[in-house]
Amino acid sequence: MAQNFNELIMYSKTFSGLTPELEVCLKDIAPVITPHLKQVTDSFYEQLATIPAAEKYLAGRIEHLKAAHLKWMINLFELDVDAQFAEGMYKVGDIHVKVNLPVEFMAGAMTLINTEIIKLVIDKMGSDLDKCSKALQAINAVTGLALMIMQQSYQESSIAEELEKFLKISGMSRTLFTNLAKAYN
Amino acid sequence: MAQNFNELIMYSKTFSGLTPELEVCLKDIAPVITPHLKQVTDSFYEQLATIPAAEKYLAGRIEHLKAAHLKWMINLFELDVDAQFAEGMYKVGDIHVKVNLPVEFMAGAMTLINTEIIKLVIDKMGSDLDKCSKALQAINAVTGLALMIMQQSYQESSIAEELEKFLKISGMSRTLFTNLAKAYN
Repeated sequence: MAQNFNELIMYSKTFSGLTPELEVCLKDIAPVITPHLKQVTDSFYEQLATIPAAEKYLAGRIEHLKAAHLKWMINLFELDVDAQFAEGMYKVGDIHVKVNLPVEFMAGAMTLINTEIIKLVIDKMGSDLDKCSKALQAINAVTGLALMIMQQSYQESSIAEELEKFLKISGMSRTLFTNLAKAYN
Repeated sequence: MAQNFNELIMYSKTFSGLTPELEVCLKDIAPVITPHLKQVTDSFYEQLATIPAAEKYLAGRIEHLKAAHLKWMINLFELDVDAQFAEGMYKVGDIHVKVNLPVEFMAGAMTLINTEIIKLVIDKMGSDLDKCSKALQAINAVTGLALMIMQQSYQESSIAEELEKFLKISGMSRTLFTNLAKAYN
């Protein structure tokens, strides 16, 4: 399905509550937060390493994955959350289907990451409660937005993979299936 | 697929970081937090009402949905997070497929709810930063766990629905499909 990433990012902002005010907040807090994100990545992968189901996705790739993860997290604070951002997260969802990552890994991982970031924000910004609250809201919104977009492409890609599997198993051509589907609807 | 809800809840706890310490925290903070959850529900449905894509799921059902939502949120603080809890969230994911709820609604909704709860926790418990940090971690973990479980059943139910659709469109019996699938694998 051709995606309109402008529409997708507008929709996702509304649904995750990422307001213009919170977008500004992310950039404001970037200098305070980003120098500590490496420790968030390290803690996250330490926790993943304790989950047997995650093992086969990590083996031999930890350093590569950590670097990509850290870059992605820094981008949450430094990049504009625009159509290009949506396109990037959309690709990540698609890749997760291709490597057969179970669906619950995405929400689980985002939860572990958010817990680490909560600790960090309270630690670094707790002396100013208003600022701290806004920072936590902004981070919750942007990680939620990223998850939403990733899961939309994951869902579309996994349904498309199911169709492929069905066509292979049934021996039916895609054209015949499409024609039957049209007749059926 | 027959689910082992004991295994599912153990797995989901590890993956969402819901430790025994954080489970105790949820019950400790319940008396401070639950009296204010009605305002979280109200804010959440006010925000949903501004999202055109959500309209058809809300029309004529708001009061019913609000009551169910509030009960679910109170349960996050008061119930044991056990196999029965997992079974309940698993059913919710299945129901979301049956009512054709788009996949991204689940992560989006959970993000809006978490933002409201962050405000509430900072407001009511901000004077004790350690307690506040732990409360936010516990709430993040339990909502993440609920989302993980809901999305696993959503994914399984939506794949099952796709197969139904293929079978209807192709006119193939389930038995023939199953036999072909065995021969193919």
